[in-house]
Amino acid sequence: MADKNQLFLGSFVHSKTLGELEYLHNTAVCVDRAGRIVAIEKDCDEKARAALLSRLEWKDSEVEVVSAREGQFFFPGFVDTHLHASQYPNVGIFGSSTLLDWLNTYTFPLEASLSDPAKARRVYTRVIRRTLSHGTTCAAYYATIDVASTTLLAELCVSHGQRALVGRVCMDTGSPVNYRDASPEAALAAARESIAQIQDLDKDMVLVRPIITPRFAPACSADLLRQLGLLAAETGLPVQTHVSENKDEIALVKKLFPRKNTGAGDDSYTAVYDAFGLLTSRTILAHGVHLTDDEAALIARRGAKVSHCPCSNSALASGAARVRWLVTEKDIVCGLGTDMSGGYSPSVLEAARQAVLVSRHVAIGAGGEEKDKLSVEEALFLATRGGACVVGLEDKVGGFEVGMEWDAQLVGLGRVGDEAGEEEEGGDDDDGNVDLFGWESWPERIAKWVYNGDDRNTKKVWVRGRLVHERK
Amino acid sequence: MADKNQLFLGSFVHSKTLGELEYLHNTAVCVDRAGRIVAIEKDCDEKARAALLSRLEWKDSEVEVVSAREGQFFFPGFVDTHLHASQYPNVGIFGSSTLLDWLNTYTFPLEASLSDPAKARRVYTRVIRRTLSHGTTCAAYYATIDVASTTLLAELCVSHGQRALVGRVCMDTGSPVNYRDASPEAALAAARESIAQIQDLDKDMVLVRPIITPRFAPACSADLLRQLGLLAAETGLPVQTHVSENKDEIALVKKLFPRKNTGAGDDSYTAVYDAFGLLTSRTILAHGVHLTDDEAALIARRGAKVSHCPCSNSALASGAARVRWLVTEKDIVCGLGTDMSGGYSPSVLEAARQAVLVSRHVAIGAGGEEKDKLSVEEALFLATRGGACVVGLEDKVGGFEVGMEWDAQLVGLGRVGDEAGEEEEGGDDDDGNVDLFGWESWPERIAKWVYNGDDRNTKKVWVRGRLVHERK
Repeated sequence: MADKNQLFLGSFVHSKTLGELEYLHNTAVCVDRAGRIVAIEKDCDEKARAALLSRLEWKDSEVEVVSAREGQFFFPGFVDTHLHASQYPNVGIFGSSTLLDWLNTYTFPLEASLSDPAKARRVYTRVIRRTLSHGTTCAAYYATIDVASTTLLAELCVSHGQRALVGRVCMDTGSPVNYRDASPEAALAAARESIAQIQDLDKDMVLVRPIITPRFAPACSADLLRQLGLLAAETGLPVQTHVSENKDEIALVKKLFPRKNTGAGDDSYTAVYDAFGLLTSRTILAHGVHLTDDEAALIARRGAKVSHCPCSNSALASGAARVRWLVTEKDIVCGLGTDMSGGYSPSVLEAARQAVLVSRHVAIGAGGEEKDKLSVEEALFLATRGGACVVGLEDKVGGFEVGMEWDAQLVGLGRVGDEAGEEEEGGDDDDGNVDLFGWESWPERIAKWVYNGDDRNTKKVWVRGRLVHERK
Repeated sequence: MADKNQLFLGSFVHSKTLGELEYLHNTAVCVDRAGRIVAIEKDCDEKARAALLSRLEWKDSEVEVVSAREGQFFFPGFVDTHLHASQYPNVGIFGSSTLLDWLNTYTFPLEASLSDPAKARRVYTRVIRRTLSHGTTCAAYYATIDVASTTLLAELCVSHGQRALVGRVCMDTGSPVNYRDASPEAALAAARESIAQIQDLDKDMVLVRPIITPRFAPACSADLLRQLGLLAAETGLPVQTHVSENKDEIALVKKLFPRKNTGAGDDSYTAVYDAFGLLTSRTILAHGVHLTDDEAALIARRGAKVSHCPCSNSALASGAARVRWLVTEKDIVCGLGTDMSGGYSPSVLEAARQAVLVSRHVAIGAGGEEKDKLSVEEALFLATRGGACVVGLEDKVGGFEVGMEWDAQLVGLGRVGDEAGEEEEGGDDDDGNVDLFGWESWPERIAKWVYNGDDRNTKKVWVRGRLVHERK
């Protein structure tokens, strides 16, 4: 909670539709002590501002004013719809491995080691601080199978003020014996315990909520998947898992879960989750690189969501997900995920940039189809509104609307001085690699930010009105 | 020139072969006043260091000692083998355009405007400072058709201390009338004038040299190409141009230069340059995305070089160049190019990262072929030794060897503190997004640098022993 009511002044940019950003200049956004947006006033001069405060019955002394400088703008906080907090120390380390050998070589040993609480605290603190500094105001985290350190992750999110879904990983097969649940029953008991501990931390689920997390079908027995499906139905909690990331993985699922055993509607990977009650409107499916037309239709029918993770899919050579096809032709809600450490970067802005680039590889593969190409605006929609919908918070975050909460970042871009380009004007800190020469339109500034921006451009970050990161 | 002899101490990392980095720890590298490496001493303790200085007859008072801190390392400066200095203000701005419409919409108008000397100074100064800050010690620049401002670019390279090949762009067709040479003769005269002015600046071509620059076949008449081929033979100067970037471009070349007119060996794009004497061992061909087997064989026979520009090829949806095939199967020397502003980033490290990722898209397209995947080590080879060979400086730069010149960067990576990950140790400035936890091997540290590093990790940059950039 913020100490005071807050009045944000300046330029605001957010997604209006998938393909269109709205630019609100000289605008005032009023945020109450509870972090809720209570008024938005466009073209707000001194007089209009006074009238606005009077209408809200806010006294000047009770209002903290935060002004964006010329050229800066407020943008909604990013939603990272898929990442493994526990894998953060491995970012960038994968050699030439692909999914299944990468899990065994790099991932499982690191995750297992995080049952050490000191190590877990060090890693989880770092990943929260790092992602906040990149403007990630909400994250859907996988932790590990360890209940205590999963709760610690949730605690650290609360103390650092990051909105999060935190999942204790369930897996009773397909991994080393020292890093798996002993049985479906043991997994279910641990899942329940983790849910209880996380709910206990934040009873109204204001900032942090638990999420049911079957790792992925190859790491779960049919019994476990069935019980987690029942748990999802019983609790109404969200679910996160992986689907159709890699071709060997898909073949493995087909072998492990033959249709005759599961009673699934067809032979597909997606149908396995559906057979066990895990494909719900509150389900986040990471990747979906190789989804068939039928699978996409099934996902759309169930209202499940997809987290697109382009950095990871390229780095592990999983494939190029047809995200624009999923969104525009199959009507599936998609967001972006950094998928650390399959993905190498903590930045959702980097995920947006790679989403744009990977969509061009999809287009190239399809003979240059324009309809496969994601625009900068569309990638930013996925990073904000799309992601908010993926995590079930579309009424609260992802844009600037009265009634929504103030999850936002203040973005500043560098300006090249007139004096022979030697000096920058007006910047009192390092503005990174975005160089504005002064003649760029607002859409061009946004494109420059998406292509060359980094955490240096994210000056301040708020969640529910609370300032949770500020660049020094 | 440096004021003093210099002694660099610490860890040094450079490419030994395409696939292998050499790690030299506790090593001393001696650089004389002329910027040349005169001795390299491994495992150099105090006593060995004293003996070394005595052998070189260097008095202590005449030696400046530069020590890498624990965890920092010296790395060869990067060579950017292809970029358009004149397009720098447009980085990140391309919408969903592809090559030919992008040129007309974004590129030609900006380039034409740089005949204004004040604007050219502002832009060129910025691009030199920006690329130096990313560790680019040598760049193969395209300027514009304007002779005076092309010379200004060369002057600014000299004054900022960046090694460069600077090309005045020749083009007498296929662009707006206000931005093309009036005739082949006018183009040739301007090319000769530009060469003379640049050579006059730096008579021994120590730092800067001119490069013959036919923009690309579709922007040049057959007459102009022929005359530039003769100029290359007459002067022995290097040549740079574009080849086989985009399928529409390839079709256009086929239409513009039918074999019966050029007398080329076959119908290919590459054969057009060959027919005009422009395919030499000193030729840098940018892109080569869609080269056929025969074209690659022709390039190899002529000893021409390829500049791989993955950022640009993805952003403009040109395609995914099979760079590992070019290097390992066709024996073509390749380097990396940022290709601003077809490419969005000033960073060769970003080009290396994208080269690794794009190579995975090549592998995906080929059904998951391991042999298409570039490793981190291979990408760094292309960024240094490969690039040096592309620009004809392989005896001078690209690695640490006695007799070579000291073009280098000092790299520092961030460390996560033990105290709950809250604090970083030992860093007195911002180390960017690379987080070392302390247990990483040296190859893992390098991988983390390639995947998450940026200009914040490049602490100092030297060219020919002169300190040309230092992070504040």
